[in-house]
Amino acid sequence: MIQKLISKIQKTSAPIVAGLDPMMDYIPEQIKKAAFSAYGETLEGAAEAIWQYNKGLVDALYDIIPAVKPQSAMYEQFGIPGMAAFEKTITYCQEKGLVVIGDVKRGDIGSTSEAYAVAHLGKVQIGNRTYSGFHEDFATVNPYLGSDGIKPFLKVCREEKKGIFILVKTSNPSSGEFQDRLIDGRPLYEIVGEKVAQWGQECMGDTYSYVGAVVGATYPEMGRTLRKIMPKAYILVPGYGAQGGQGKDLVPFFNEDGLGAIVNSSRGIIAAWQQEKYGKYGEAGYADAARAAAMDMREDISMILNSKA
Amino acid sequence: MIQKLISKIQKTSAPIVAGLDPMMDYIPEQIKKAAFSAYGETLEGAAEAIWQYNKGLVDALYDIIPAVKPQSAMYEQFGIPGMAAFEKTITYCQEKGLVVIGDVKRGDIGSTSEAYAVAHLGKVQIGNRTYSGFHEDFATVNPYLGSDGIKPFLKVCREEKKGIFILVKTSNPSSGEFQDRLIDGRPLYEIVGEKVAQWGQECMGDTYSYVGAVVGATYPEMGRTLRKIMPKAYILVPGYGAQGGQGKDLVPFFNEDGLGAIVNSSRGIIAAWQQEKYGKYGEAGYADAARAAAMDMREDISMILNSKA
Repeated sequence: MIQKLISKIQKTSAPIVAGLDPMMDYIPEQIKKAAFSAYGETLEGAAEAIWQYNKGLVDALYDIIPAVKPQSAMYEQFGIPGMAAFEKTITYCQEKGLVVIGDVKRGDIGSTSEAYAVAHLGKVQIGNRTYSGFHEDFATVNPYLGSDGIKPFLKVCREEKKGIFILVKTSNPSSGEFQDRLIDGRPLYEIVGEKVAQWGQECMGDTYSYVGAVVGATYPEMGRTLRKIMPKAYILVPGYGAQGGQGKDLVPFFNEDGLGAIVNSSRGIIAAWQQEKYGKYGEAGYADAARAAAMDMREDISMILNSKA
Repeated sequence: MIQKLISKIQKTSAPIVAGLDPMMDYIPEQIKKAAFSAYGETLEGAAEAIWQYNKGLVDALYDIIPAVKPQSAMYEQFGIPGMAAFEKTITYCQEKGLVVIGDVKRGDIGSTSEAYAVAHLGKVQIGNRTYSGFHEDFATVNPYLGSDGIKPFLKVCREEKKGIFILVKTSNPSSGEFQDRLIDGRPLYEIVGEKVAQWGQECMGDTYSYVGAVVGATYPEMGRTLRKIMPKAYILVPGYGAQGGQGKDLVPFFNEDGLGAIVNSSRGIIAAWQQEKYGKYGEAGYADAARAAAMDMREDISMILNSKA
């Protein structure tokens, strides 16, 4: 799956993942009105609005970006109907050829971590049959519990040829509270980065590993160091745009081959219609606004990477 | 809710939480057979088997223990039907008066962490109405992302009078890879423990905080230190029994008032029927075996705490 991700990035010239993190405030009124009139102001109604909104976004984006990243929490808050919309979105994106990164930030130990890996990347055995619960192509994983939490994911990744992105240095202001603390003179995120590189050796694709890392665009200097520590890890870079990360900050996350990083934008793409810059598309044109924003982002990144070369 | 938990612990004399972590191997054949004959060897069939198994356990346990801890991964692996069994189990346990600790180990930042808090502890707004997705009483939370990940949970905890248990020192062998690394001469888990104590001050109950901690029974000496660092935090203690933690190891986790800790046992209770010691109950008597194992565990802990006094 890492090969598929890379080949799609090359084909679209867009190292971009659109974060499908639907908030009710982002969803155009006409979509909500139709969903609530069919299902009432219920969990089912909200889930239907999310699904219709996502479908419009995916239809407008699938040919110009390689991947999407639905954020589990945004669906989970709507209970079972929300989780059903999550699964339906994943299925639809895969039908459209998009690589799906499940942003689930799961992590536990032993058989429990394996159950999470099975839930999101693998297959569960029931009698003589097997089923895939949420069947993402990649999942994000939290490293705090150490190898016992990660190895069950590696096992499933090898079986399914799927991948994970391990949280190393997150994009938020307080990420330093623990991640930046010095251990023998080096920050914790570097220690985690070294483990990511080690774990990655157990799951190599042709040029990059199935084991990637999450490093925030808001910390480009740390990104530079981590790029060197984990040369074979694809880096999923959140924090571009709305969280303050700028185009030029992205350079250190890429390798010399122009690969090695994929940059996430959520609100900046899916709620572009609410920005002044894309206001001309109007509320009904939210999907076209998202497409325009994704193309602008592709242009922004392309210019930066070319000026570097 | 921390008051309810404490008063139920006192009423039952059992600082015990039963981990409802159903594995297909634990479930008696006759339950699986009935479920598969109704729904086939499908996700729905597995979910029905889990639900019936849980119901039997809860009916046998609800009057002698204060709380249960369903582990999300074990349900999530069965997709939407699995998550529906998770929610149904939570509802049923609450109807029986049990405190429900959702072992979800979630954690993200900002609005996303708030969405997880809402999903598991709070209420989501849909138009003019509100709904509770999974409505646990407590949830476990991962601290790796720092305050930005925790504070949205604190907000919901204050609104709903519910609580969280933050991972501090987990019970698994490799937990030391990151958690034990020394920062200015002190292990990371102590630094996290100090933050737990700080966060906890923002959400106090009468004597203990709504903000608790997870510290594994397998590390009693670390438990002793953490008990002092976080005097007002209830400690959720996994790792007793199957993972190797023994009765005497539990002493340091409790305060002088005999409170302050709740010990989890999953397999040791819910799959007791598979142990030689409880073999006489047979497969059909799995619920009675669970009750006997929970009573033995209560006795074990009670003896240890009394011999300490």
